[in-house]
This record gives sequence, C-alpha cells and structure tokens, in this order.
Amino acid sequence: MTADPNPFMQRALAEARAAADRGEVPVGAVLVDPATGVPIATDGNRVVAGSDPTAHAEMLVLRAGAFEFGSERLSGMDLYVTLEPCPMCAAAISLARIRKLIYGAEDPKSGGVDHGPRIFSQPTCHHSPEVIGGVAASDSADLLQQFFGARRGRAR
Amino acid sequence: MTADPNPFMQRALAEARAAADRGEVPVGAVLVDPATGVPIATDGNRVVAGSDPTAHAEMLVLRAGAFEFGSERLSGMDLYVTLEPCPMCAAAISLARIRKLIYGAEDPKSGGVDHGPRIFSQPTCHHSPEVIGGVAASDSADLLQQFFGARRGRAR
Repeated sequence: MTADPNPFMQRALAEARAAADRGEVPVGAVLVDPATGVPIATDGNRVVAGSDPTAHAEMLVLRAGAFEFGSERLSGMDLYVTLEPCPMCAAAISLARIRKLIYGAEDPKSGGVDHGPRIFSQPTCHHSPEVIGGVAASDSADLLQQFFGARRGRAR
Repeated sequence: MTADPNPFMQRALAEARAAADRGEVPVGAVLVDPATGVPIATDGNRVVAGSDPTAHAEMLVLRAGAFEFGSERLSGMDLYVTLEPCPMCAAAISLARIRKLIYGAEDPKSGGVDHGPRIFSQPTCHHSPEVIGGVAASDSADLLQQFFGARRGRAR
C-alpha cells in the first residue's frame, strides 16, 4: 500500500497535464503557504504560448505569489514542482527566499538543484531552501516521456 | 585618451541610473539586434516596484524582446548589462540563446557568469554566449557603490 498522494503535488501534476495539452513541456508548480495550507498560485509552463523563455511554471507561480503579497520575498512559502528546477528557476527560488522546495522527477540533463550547477550548494548562494525530491516522480516522468515521445527534439 | 564609450552600454547605464532614482538596485540592460544595430528593448531593475523577485533588468529585456519577436528564442541577439548577471539571469540568457553578452562590473558576491556557479561553463549548459566583461565597469561600479553606500543592507 502506498502513502496518500501529496495533494499539492497532485495539483502541480494537473497543471503539468494542462501544459501538455497547450503544447508546452509538461511541468506544473504550486506555491503554498504552509501556515494556512492554502495554494497561493498554481500554473504550468507557458514558454511557447507567451513567447517567453523565462515562463517556466516555477517562475510564473513565484511572480504571481510575490505580486499577490506585494513583496519580492516569499519567506516561509513552499514550492511544489513536478520536475527538478533548472538553474534559472533554482536561482529565482533562492532570490524569493522560498522555505521549502518539493519536486517530482529528477532532471539530470537540465536540472540545477541536484544536477548541473547545484545552485543551492554554491558558496555565493545567499538563501538555500530545504529540498525534498522524488515526490510522485514516476507520474511526472511518465508525463514528460509521453510528451517528448510524441514531439522529439523540442527543448523545454 | 580612452576609447569612445560603447553607446549600448551608455544606454544601459542610463537605465541603471533611472533604476536608482526609483529606489531599485542600479542595474540596466539593453537587448540589441547586431544585424541592424537597433536596440530591441531597454530596461532597469524593477524588483521593488513590481514586487517581483525575478524582475532583474536582464530578465525584463529578454522577456520584452522575445514577446516583440513572437519567439522564446533570441538567437543572434546581443545583451548589454551594467553588472555581471546573477545565476538566474545567466541561465535565462542561455535559454534565450543570446549570441553575445557584454557586461560592465564584475559581481564576485552574486554573479553567475565569471563567479559562483559559472553557468555557461557547466557541462549541462546547452547554449553559451560569447562573453565580454569589464565594459565601462567603473561607471557601473560607481553607481552601485553610491547606491549601497546610501542604503546599507538592501539586497538586490
């Protein structure tokens, strides 16, 4: 018997599926206030739709949450994302002072947390969140595999 | 006798000064199409004004340029910025496929190009622009020093 699925990661996975339906790389993110258990912002990748190289799911929920709170800092907030964040998103997570990062599948090719530049381990990283990886990882990986199987060669 | 000042870096410095006047860390950026010599987008930091931890000058001109061209890729475009980009911006520059990055002052504390994670030197970095640092570096450093001298302890 497996543990109950994490509801926030399930919501992030729903955003990832919606992104795939839009023709975007299926990655979804949810920003949560752990004090209340309320999701502050949820979104999926919008790189193609927005003609925006920075419109990864993580960036969109960080920006939406910060705007909502009227502050560039999201201290105490948690971020759920279906895929290990890339270096851009990892650095943004640090700048936003996110408390805890919970991610799904690992990304050895383009990840920036547990692969590549390992942003939070750099001596010049001024804020490192707690990191929990591998949550619902196979669901996330399946979505990505299905997407890239259908559309070979498309970069995130 | 010194060389003629680079006009795009001068424009980026003007954006940095305007940012300081708004109470933002004085960093400015200009996105240029080298084929025509036309600046596509110019801006300065808007982190505080926009309540947006990702609103560094580089991110703003990358997003504006990509929107202008209707593509998440800015292949062949050059980016001028008054300060060495942070890891977030460096990774975004890579994602946007910028041809050449020209920056002013070095940023040993928070830079991500020639310091910290050295984003473009990572084996998992899928596109590395040509990089020229130190252009009008003292003008940029003077602006930053003046700003942080007046407002101690404020992070970018």
